[in-house]
Amino acid sequence: MRVAFDELARTLTTILTGRGMTAGHAELCARLFAETDRDGVYTHGVNRFLRFVRMIDSGAIDVHATAAVSAQVGLLERWDGKRGPGNLNAYACMDRAVKMAREHGLGCVALSNTTHWMRGGSYGWQAAEAAMIGICWTNTLPNLPAWGDRLPRLGNNPLVIAVPRMGRHVVLDMAMSQFSYGTLTAYRKRGEFLPVDGGFDTDGNLTRDPAAIERSLRPLPIGYWKGSGFSLVLDMIAAMMAGGRATHQIPADPEREVGVCQVFLAMNAAAFSDAGPIAERVIASLGGVRYPGERVLRTREENLLLGIPVDEATWATVEALATGAK
Amino acid sequence: MRVAFDELARTLTTILTGRGMTAGHAELCARLFAETDRDGVYTHGVNRFLRFVRMIDSGAIDVHATAAVSAQVGLLERWDGKRGPGNLNAYACMDRAVKMAREHGLGCVALSNTTHWMRGGSYGWQAAEAAMIGICWTNTLPNLPAWGDRLPRLGNNPLVIAVPRMGRHVVLDMAMSQFSYGTLTAYRKRGEFLPVDGGFDTDGNLTRDPAAIERSLRPLPIGYWKGSGFSLVLDMIAAMMAGGRATHQIPADPEREVGVCQVFLAMNAAAFSDAGPIAERVIASLGGVRYPGERVLRTREENLLLGIPVDEATWATVEALATGAK
Repeated sequence: MRVAFDELARTLTTILTGRGMTAGHAELCARLFAETDRDGVYTHGVNRFLRFVRMIDSGAIDVHATAAVSAQVGLLERWDGKRGPGNLNAYACMDRAVKMAREHGLGCVALSNTTHWMRGGSYGWQAAEAAMIGICWTNTLPNLPAWGDRLPRLGNNPLVIAVPRMGRHVVLDMAMSQFSYGTLTAYRKRGEFLPVDGGFDTDGNLTRDPAAIERSLRPLPIGYWKGSGFSLVLDMIAAMMAGGRATHQIPADPEREVGVCQVFLAMNAAAFSDAGPIAERVIASLGGVRYPGERVLRTREENLLLGIPVDEATWATVEALATGAK
Repeated sequence: MRVAFDELARTLTTILTGRGMTAGHAELCARLFAETDRDGVYTHGVNRFLRFVRMIDSGAIDVHATAAVSAQVGLLERWDGKRGPGNLNAYACMDRAVKMAREHGLGCVALSNTTHWMRGGSYGWQAAEAAMIGICWTNTLPNLPAWGDRLPRLGNNPLVIAVPRMGRHVVLDMAMSQFSYGTLTAYRKRGEFLPVDGGFDTDGNLTRDPAAIERSLRPLPIGYWKGSGFSLVLDMIAAMMAGGRATHQIPADPEREVGVCQVFLAMNAAAFSDAGPIAERVIASLGGVRYPGERVLRTREENLLLGIPVDEATWATVEALATGAK
């Protein structure tokens, strides 16, 4: 089924205000969830919202908390997320980084003690809409074995890099694992093999069989040893900059994944008037090959026109929550 | 054969001063080459020096040029490399970024119109030695097909991320291609297959055969579509920030690869006293799995003790150049 964007956002807002979130926070939080579905990232929109509500109800996420600056060295700020809603915390920190960059060319906020930011790309689009190059990443619970290891001691640490253009921003949103567990499950349910090797089977052989990787718990980092090292440095930098937890300190249970660290960096390349035309020439040089984020705009247009695709059972649950919250 | 580090550095210095480089520049330039071999990155030390000299002799590299700031927005500076020696330009820019970060928490220099920086890791180690988190990358000539493309329109755009520790820095130095052409050649000469798929053969099938990839000119980006998008955004950002050439504008001939752009970012996490202990705990949590840069220190120690391994024919050529330069 499809649900209109405004109805989706309004319904989620009702549920959040019913749980004590202020009206302004609830509207922004709900909008970020709804925009995630609007843009076609269905794993992290309504489908993730139910877990988000469970984590509010369990006390893992504090709906009343607001992230605030806790330390500062020039244009490098540390913020404490106080276990508040992860998307609100992330949005506030990218907003602050953008403001610093607008005034000083650069700005960086490192956020500790926060919760899952849901769709990382949201904060890339946010920076790009403000005409900034935005780079942000999060550490995560341990879910990825290092190259040469059998145990998942690294996180898949999604990295977002956004490049502003006139209305058609380039937004890369990529995790350090080649395939998420969600993607592996989706392939298995469709009875399909992965298009490329996605991990090891229990015998230690590379495989395209999603079920074999779900059994071994050994998905591959992108680029094998390269993504393994990359994931490690992203985790180290996030925890060091923010003064918070690294992956090895984060509970491996997704329902208790709190205290993660994130970095939000904004760079004001658009202050130089030639930056925009340079970006356009690069895109033109691709010869039609798709750039990161390109497909999002088409999906967005379609979903705004036809409504957001939502699973019927999920929507029934969401509506019941909203009715209960009124 | 092995050559003592000091002898190697002195010999390269003689060649460079003989070509008109000032004594101070020649010593630093030679030291950066010698340190590259000292640390075991043999592809980019003496073995790359002969091409470097050819490019000076052909006029592609201007030995007399010194990079200088050309524009500024707060802590974001643009520098013009003036087609000077790439390693000197890069060193000067990371040095400037570090100085800004020491004073203001962050600093960023975007360098245009420069030449090959040789070993990218050099500038990561440089930042880490100054107790800074250093992030830098370069764009390159086109040598990597985008995912879904058959022509190499992207660069392998090496990315360096350095995390300072007490003497044992973590330095990731990775190109966006899974294997460089140099590595493919080395595997082929040894008669070995790659450990994982490295590209497509001429029939469009993924392959571990290095010769097949040398024939097809279709090496793989790390993480397939992911590294493809990553390479693109690194190129865009470098060119936009620096106001210089993007990959599509850089000559595909390595002997004429000039006008590349680079970004040097320094972040002063060490200003927060808990950052160091956090880094140590992350490394301890790895359970002995190797971190990026770990092997470098052992190689460095061995090469300083026993001398730097150098190919005899190459060394004979270098010595002849030095004799001619005196």
